[in-house]
Amino acid sequence: MALPDLAPLAALAGAMADAAGEIARGYFRQPVAIEDKADATPVTRADRESERAIRRLVAEHHPTHGVIGEEEGPERPEAEFVWVIDPLDGTKRFITGNPMFGCLIALLHEGRPVLGVIDMPVLGERWVGVAGQPTLFRDAQGDREVRARPCATLDQATLSAASPHMFSDHELPAFERVRKAVKTPLYGGDCFNYGALASGFMDLVIEADMGLYDYMAVIPVVTGAGGLVTDWRGQTLGLEGATGRVLAAGDPKVHEAALALLALD
Amino acid sequence: MALPDLAPLAALAGAMADAAGEIARGYFRQPVAIEDKADATPVTRADRESERAIRRLVAEHHPTHGVIGEEEGPERPEAEFVWVIDPLDGTKRFITGNPMFGCLIALLHEGRPVLGVIDMPVLGERWVGVAGQPTLFRDAQGDREVRARPCATLDQATLSAASPHMFSDHELPAFERVRKAVKTPLYGGDCFNYGALASGFMDLVIEADMGLYDYMAVIPVVTGAGGLVTDWRGQTLGLEGATGRVLAAGDPKVHEAALALLALD
Repeated sequence: MALPDLAPLAALAGAMADAAGEIARGYFRQPVAIEDKADATPVTRADRESERAIRRLVAEHHPTHGVIGEEEGPERPEAEFVWVIDPLDGTKRFITGNPMFGCLIALLHEGRPVLGVIDMPVLGERWVGVAGQPTLFRDAQGDREVRARPCATLDQATLSAASPHMFSDHELPAFERVRKAVKTPLYGGDCFNYGALASGFMDLVIEADMGLYDYMAVIPVVTGAGGLVTDWRGQTLGLEGATGRVLAAGDPKVHEAALALLALD
Repeated sequence: MALPDLAPLAALAGAMADAAGEIARGYFRQPVAIEDKADATPVTRADRESERAIRRLVAEHHPTHGVIGEEEGPERPEAEFVWVIDPLDGTKRFITGNPMFGCLIALLHEGRPVLGVIDMPVLGERWVGVAGQPTLFRDAQGDREVRARPCATLDQATLSAASPHMFSDHELPAFERVRKAVKTPLYGGDCFNYGALASGFMDLVIEADMGLYDYMAVIPVVTGAGGLVTDWRGQTLGLEGATGRVLAAGDPKVHEAALALLALD
């Protein structure tokens, strides 16, 4: 079916991020000593309550839409529109009092991400990508369009990954080939790195062991800023056949150069 | 000589951090395209201008004090009081638009750090450690005392390091022994991690290739919160004989356990 006007859906995604962010901020840096159950830590509570708040907004505004989230089972995953959400990406940062965690919200239309939000609740920063439109960055100063930066060769590139330990023994040598070829490799940051790439502050993000929740939202954000997001074979990241391996680049030239080094044996 | 009242010196250190932070915020996320000289990037300008602002405050208030900074040569390093400053720690984060960079200010009395400030200008967060006093954390909600948390064994510990690539081939196997023994290893964060340790959000920071500027300020912050900072042999980190290897722990038990694994061949 034809794609409807996405503006009201983008506004709804913003409301979802607002709700999730308020919950995450409320649990951030709260003492864990009072908790006595493994499933009742602040991070788990923040995760679960945020996902429920988002599901409530879907049910209220678009009861026919599907939802795929990390905490609860999928609802209507065959629907024309499906929301894919990671209410708290970067939980290891969250539990160390580090504000570099975020909320990821994607809307899929017939399996393809047409809307994506990367929200950083403590920083008060948000990237919104909508199919066919320039990516917007929002902070206390308001909204503005952002653009990935040009980067012609790997030896000029800044690369980021959440951790070198996210790669399997099979994947690590491929990542290491790129890591050694770039100018600056950095770790940490999780979903923030995709926003930083969209804003033209870095050139590559290469990760593995990623779920749908982790990569669907970043696709519209990065592509709306002129960048590319694929798997390590250069294929579109979809619902099916996903390897969990992500290659995001701001410049097609550096995407191609990284792809050549990422070929797995 | 006897140690004077440190309160006015702590206030001066706060003014230094205010001045450096204002400069860093002004250059943060500014376009680099207009720059044509390698030494005129925003990060270099922020670094240099911040250090000059701090040196001006020293000259104005305590012209007999020494200063050791990254950008300019040491002044009066033999003085009874010497300021050791890293105006912009985490420059790789700074240039990628990542707010996890900081300003580090230490005051040495006869070579021993008696005052330390870790300031995060974009986050609006600051830790202040003064010899013999509890470490204070300051944000928009005001000042409060912080305390490192207990952690009895490595398998319960959260460990952090700026990057696994900061270790030499000689040091990496020792770090890896600890990394594999802990519950959660994390990378990134730079000076923030020492503040997070003082606030009881993580248990260990293990780093190498560190300069005086990088570790002097964190010593009063971590020790004032009940933690320990030594080199990898358990020795005090001083001006002389420094190996650049840092082991900070919130609990003496986890410090001892890490020390046993960090022994270099």
